[in-house]
Amino acid sequence: MEGYTYLLSLCVILLSTKIFSILSRRAQLPQVVGALMAGLFFGPAVLGAITNSFFGVEFCLKPSLLLNRMAELGVIVIMFTAGMETNIEELRASGKVGFVVALAGVLLPLGMGAGMMYCFNSKISLESAVFVGAVLTATSVSITVETLKELGKMSTKVGNTILAAALIDDILGLICLTIITGFGGEDVNLGLVLIKIVCFFMFVGAAGIVYYKYMSWSDRVQAERNLRRYPVIGFAFCFFMAWAAETLFGVADIIGAFAAGMIIALSPKGTYVASKFDTISYLLLTPIFFANIGLEVELPSMSYELVIFTVVLVLVSIVSKLIGCGIGARLCKLNSRQSYQIGLGMVCRGEVALIVAKKGMAMNLISGDDLGPIIIMIIVCTILTPIFLKRAFEGHDDIAGNTIFEDNFMIADQADEIAEDIFERKLLLDMRKQQYIA
Amino acid sequence: MEGYTYLLSLCVILLSTKIFSILSRRAQLPQVVGALMAGLFFGPAVLGAITNSFFGVEFCLKPSLLLNRMAELGVIVIMFTAGMETNIEELRASGKVGFVVALAGVLLPLGMGAGMMYCFNSKISLESAVFVGAVLTATSVSITVETLKELGKMSTKVGNTILAAALIDDILGLICLTIITGFGGEDVNLGLVLIKIVCFFMFVGAAGIVYYKYMSWSDRVQAERNLRRYPVIGFAFCFFMAWAAETLFGVADIIGAFAAGMIIALSPKGTYVASKFDTISYLLLTPIFFANIGLEVELPSMSYELVIFTVVLVLVSIVSKLIGCGIGARLCKLNSRQSYQIGLGMVCRGEVALIVAKKGMAMNLISGDDLGPIIIMIIVCTILTPIFLKRAFEGHDDIAGNTIFEDNFMIADQADEIAEDIFERKLLLDMRKQQYIA
Repeated sequence: MEGYTYLLSLCVILLSTKIFSILSRRAQLPQVVGALMAGLFFGPAVLGAITNSFFGVEFCLKPSLLLNRMAELGVIVIMFTAGMETNIEELRASGKVGFVVALAGVLLPLGMGAGMMYCFNSKISLESAVFVGAVLTATSVSITVETLKELGKMSTKVGNTILAAALIDDILGLICLTIITGFGGEDVNLGLVLIKIVCFFMFVGAAGIVYYKYMSWSDRVQAERNLRRYPVIGFAFCFFMAWAAETLFGVADIIGAFAAGMIIALSPKGTYVASKFDTISYLLLTPIFFANIGLEVELPSMSYELVIFTVVLVLVSIVSKLIGCGIGARLCKLNSRQSYQIGLGMVCRGEVALIVAKKGMAMNLISGDDLGPIIIMIIVCTILTPIFLKRAFEGHDDIAGNTIFEDNFMIADQADEIAEDIFERKLLLDMRKQQYIA
Repeated sequence: MEGYTYLLSLCVILLSTKIFSILSRRAQLPQVVGALMAGLFFGPAVLGAITNSFFGVEFCLKPSLLLNRMAELGVIVIMFTAGMETNIEELRASGKVGFVVALAGVLLPLGMGAGMMYCFNSKISLESAVFVGAVLTATSVSITVETLKELGKMSTKVGNTILAAALIDDILGLICLTIITGFGGEDVNLGLVLIKIVCFFMFVGAAGIVYYKYMSWSDRVQAERNLRRYPVIGFAFCFFMAWAAETLFGVADIIGAFAAGMIIALSPKGTYVASKFDTISYLLLTPIFFANIGLEVELPSMSYELVIFTVVLVLVSIVSKLIGCGIGARLCKLNSRQSYQIGLGMVCRGEVALIVAKKGMAMNLISGDDLGPIIIMIIVCTILTPIFLKRAFEGHDDIAGNTIFEDNFMIADQADEIAEDIFERKLLLDMRKQQYIA
């Protein structure tokens, strides 16, 4: 009966993330924290350490290929919907600021990370030291996006700057990784990588034009109301762009999904399509994504030195991003509160850092012992970012963007109420029918 | 870059099932047929036979663990929503008829299947012959359900009889399998299996009461409008019931999911929960389920004898179910048209037949050569059932149930239009805001 455990895992994930989210909201924390804690609690780190099974039934969640894949789908859907919700005008306005923030937010963690490695081990090779620095460069924007959406701050200047910076940050991190792996002796050509990235953006432009033209044509030709095809085509487009980004251009798949979302938002029926991914996200994929991060953590038996290393690594990763991005924002004349918010929003690390670390291990530049501290660093950043981000936004409304977002919430709420109303009426209808039949 | 092929697979599945569905609807066929053909066409059977890759990119879909699992989730969600849409009063009314239909529809295929095996090979063991018969007993109701939903005939007397019969059929098939595997020398205890099935129904009753009480309490206590928790809890409940059915009671997981759906439909907020699974179903899981069946088919190089065996097997499987269930329905005084519709609706075979066949192979009761014909039999039944079912229903409306279902469609359509209206208004709002800002 081994083959059916995934059903129980999905049940536990859905229930536990929901319960922990509700609890964390009651504690004035962002719900994302609760969802992460659920994975930690029901995973190998806590429940697995106490007991693996209960009356012979395995309640302890374990990482599995299915959960990993569905978590990947989850982050793709999060980035896809983030793309659909991005205000392209504001993002364009934030592009320059985003670049400065991203650049400062890559250089400082890279330098501080490498420096820290030298402090711990003066005999370490340059490549190894820089590689640990590189692990610290990549911001994982998805949790910040989820938090900002929850706070209704996604369309603010700060939100757009963080998004733009995180997008550019990913590209800079990629170039950074390419250079180091180039130094590491693999056959990666920096020029080729840069050409590929340029090609990717041209590809996004071309795909956008094709998709827009097709949708405009379809919208004109299809007199009938077969609306279902639009979300399906949009989702397929998202998968295609994610695949193409990763496979054809070596750019992260989530960037492809994000680009697809932006293209769809600008096309006919864009808002309709965007409205359809809410359910699929909160009902299945997002809970799995967050719980899955927690599941990755197995607290190994750590030496005293490794504990100190972990603490320093966590501090360096937070401080370097916060200061780096904060300085970048200040240089672009944002006020100190906004700079702090941007710095905070960029602290979050995630799957990219893990991927870089695993690549480093494969190249023998990072030792297996360092993986534990890196995972803990990611978790701590991921948990602290939304908590502090929520605090940082409290009581200070960024008026222009916020109201638009609040409108969205209001409208969604209205739609919910109308839908409920209709279904209640349908119930009445059914009851009357049954009375009529009886 | 192997790890990202699943993204392209998902893209191809979504697009191809949609395009083939649209084409098959234009050809007056049920959309389900199109979705199945998409899997056949892009899978190993057709495209894979021509070419595996195109400019080095693998466009040919291949079965994978992820797709299999997501297809399983798809059939669980289909049965779950079917459960939520089941009219429990009508099902209760159809229970007796359903039992007679199911019994006749199990005995005839079992006998004819075993007889056919003796005709082909007089030296075959009794167990082997009966096992092939057992493969023919299990109706796969999910495709019929999907077709009936599409035709708007789910809540008719015929629809309810098919559902009831298929549910009972599954249990009879299970008992049947248990007896044969018992004969086959494994340590299965028939009495124990029957006790487990009885326990399962008691468990469903108990779980239903607990769920209903919790929901009533929650509905009373929660003054705030946090509606999202209801679909999440409902989905978790579905996974739990599916897992429990399979693992604790040895009943098929889809029966557990179906039971969960029925319980939710009877509980507070049931209609609201039911309304939320539409998107997740058509946008991701259902296309994967249908495409995945097509993907399983690899047309092997078949001997002349095997081709004849396949043709006979297909004929026997169709005729035995059609006549068996039809006679059962006639015995219960349904008219000949209704009996024909019920017989047709029960012809469909699916994953249960595959599972039984694979179990037979593991027990050395079915030879590997027979698996190909069995898969082809499943595909042919699956494709023919919806086509003939649609024809059988054309022009003959089953008034009482149909109108309720048409109401559902009408209401869903209304909701769609209202939603669109709201989002268009929101667009206007946004535009006005932007003008205001500018």
